Amino acid sequence: MFPSPLFGAIEAGGTKFVLGVGTGPEDMRETTRIETDTRSTPSSEILAKVTAWFQEAESRHGKLAAIGVGTFGPAGVNPAAADYGYITTTPKPLWANTDVLGALRRVFPVPMGFDTDVNAAALGEWRWGAGQGCGTLLYLTVGTGIGGGALVRGRPLHGLLHPEMGHLRIPRAAGDTFEGVCPWHGDCLEGMANGPAMEKRWGVKASTLPPDHGAWEMEAHYLACACVNFLMTLSPERCIIGGGVTQNNHLLPRVRAKCAALVNHYLAHPVLAGGLENWLVAPGLGTRSGLLGALALAQEALAAAGTKV
Amino acid sequence: MFPSPLFGAIEAGGTKFVLGVGTGPEDMRETTRIETDTRSTPSSEILAKVTAWFQEAESRHGKLAAIGVGTFGPAGVNPAAADYGYITTTPKPLWANTDVLGALRRVFPVPMGFDTDVNAAALGEWRWGAGQGCGTLLYLTVGTGIGGGALVRGRPLHGLLHPEMGHLRIPRAAGDTFEGVCPWHGDCLEGMANGPAMEKRWGVKASTLPPDHGAWEMEAHYLACACVNFLMTLSPERCIIGGGVTQNNHLLPRVRAKCAALVNHYLAHPVLAGGLENWLVAPGLGTRSGLLGALALAQEALAAAGTKV
Repeated sequence: MFPSPLFGAIEAGGTKFVLGVGTGPEDMRETTRIETDTRSTPSSEILAKVTAWFQEAESRHGKLAAIGVGTFGPAGVNPAAADYGYITTTPKPLWANTDVLGALRRVFPVPMGFDTDVNAAALGEWRWGAGQGCGTLLYLTVGTGIGGGALVRGRPLHGLLHPEMGHLRIPRAAGDTFEGVCPWHGDCLEGMANGPAMEKRWGVKASTLPPDHGAWEMEAHYLACACVNFLMTLSPERCIIGGGVTQNNHLLPRVRAKCAALVNHYLAHPVLAGGLENWLVAPGLGTRSGLLGALALAQEALAAAGTKV
Repeated sequence: MFPSPLFGAIEAGGTKFVLGVGTGPEDMRETTRIETDTRSTPSSEILAKVTAWFQEAESRHGKLAAIGVGTFGPAGVNPAAADYGYITTTPKPLWANTDVLGALRRVFPVPMGFDTDVNAAALGEWRWGAGQGCGTLLYLTVGTGIGGGALVRGRPLHGLLHPEMGHLRIPRAAGDTFEGVCPWHGDCLEGMANGPAMEKRWGVKASTLPPDHGAWEMEAHYLACACVNFLMTLSPERCIIGGGVTQNNHLLPRVRAKCAALVNHYLAHPVLAGGLENWLVAPGLGTRSGLLGALALAQEALAAAGTKV
């Protein structure tokens, strides 16, 4: 029997990079976390740490067959475009126009996959998590930012750029006069419902708000409006919601209830019956969706390289 | 040289069915229009007229090689599902659970394509109209209803059901207290911005409102919010807007301006530069997008049948 190929996975976020090497979700050989403030640390410095860690990991575990990157964005995800593999127009000045894949390629001459963190997470959840069997799938993360990725027929959705689902225009909750925190849009979804918005509106970190605090009903309103819009636009077979703000056992049921009320039986499908428990779900991979999604990108890159030979 | 195959095309709407036979957009041999009130005429009666017309058309033009149907919905568009080819849960009682393809198949034993009217229109525009070259494409119609279809990588988007883009939740225009006309959702996009909503809000038919009437700025607000949400969710390479409400020369420029203001330079792409003239466009096929889209569905059905042999 041939040994399984070893993959490198990178989940590149604004506050931390998570790296891993392994052959699959049951066999992650080693992972590490590089804390980083992308507002103060040059991208070259972080990428040097990344390549150095993978070189050390190779000395312990063997050669990498392919590397996958799931990154914060906006990012160049079109393989035919000049900016493929770049983090592009991010407002973080030290990271704008960073050639991530180029930096990796100079050290590792292997096939590479590259996509947004949320498209990667959707792919990981489809392969091994809560999205199995759902070729059209949406993954939303609600934390410091709000972002969404999607698969259509099992492949990440790109289009003109890539989805930026945090920036939907949605109706305000009744009586909510908060101005929003999005630097571009003020009261878009992210501006009203990310972690910093909750903290600014209520004066304390979202994680410290008790379950009976009105903040959660309001938060559920914004997320439910967003989920309805996703359902009406992309018609995903399942909608997976993860991220720090959802790390409790009471928000998701509230979002389901409000979402069902908003849909108001307009759409008939067994998956939408009952309380949406089968449509709106938590990640099956817990907090590993992104990293395992990056590993899935690496696997796909290797497979695609094989078919090109 | 072999003659081009002859196709039948059906654009099935709530107030009229448009039928055509031809080999392509430059060679539509004959078309007809069957006025129908789907609230008062049984579906069997209309479908009998449809099959009779195609039989007569065959006697004049020759045998049909395939038939394509673009229909109002909700409709069963998943070929693997039991309700494939049906108009399903429509609130029009005389049309609920109507087996459209079955009725056609009993008379015409040829390959058949079946999709929503708006997915068909997107396909037609992609093949021959304003969407050429845009594999990820959105088509929105704004008339008696509001509906949207999409292609992803050149194929219609289905997912769990199919898009129902008229039923987005979007923020109200400042000062707009209109309750909305959607029987399910009140003030969803369709409830606030379809033709009947404009007529009820302003007391006259939309087509009689002068270009300097405030109604149009308000209408542009709703459509712009929707287009932003489509851009952030599906990231279409182009967004085509047709339908009766848009049949004037001043609404689309207003929607573009509001849309650009809402995006506020958050996304950088040449197609989004300037005034969105290259992203938000009128149909290239005029009012023929739906019928020609149905013909494109017939072509694809014939091609797919060929590959199965």
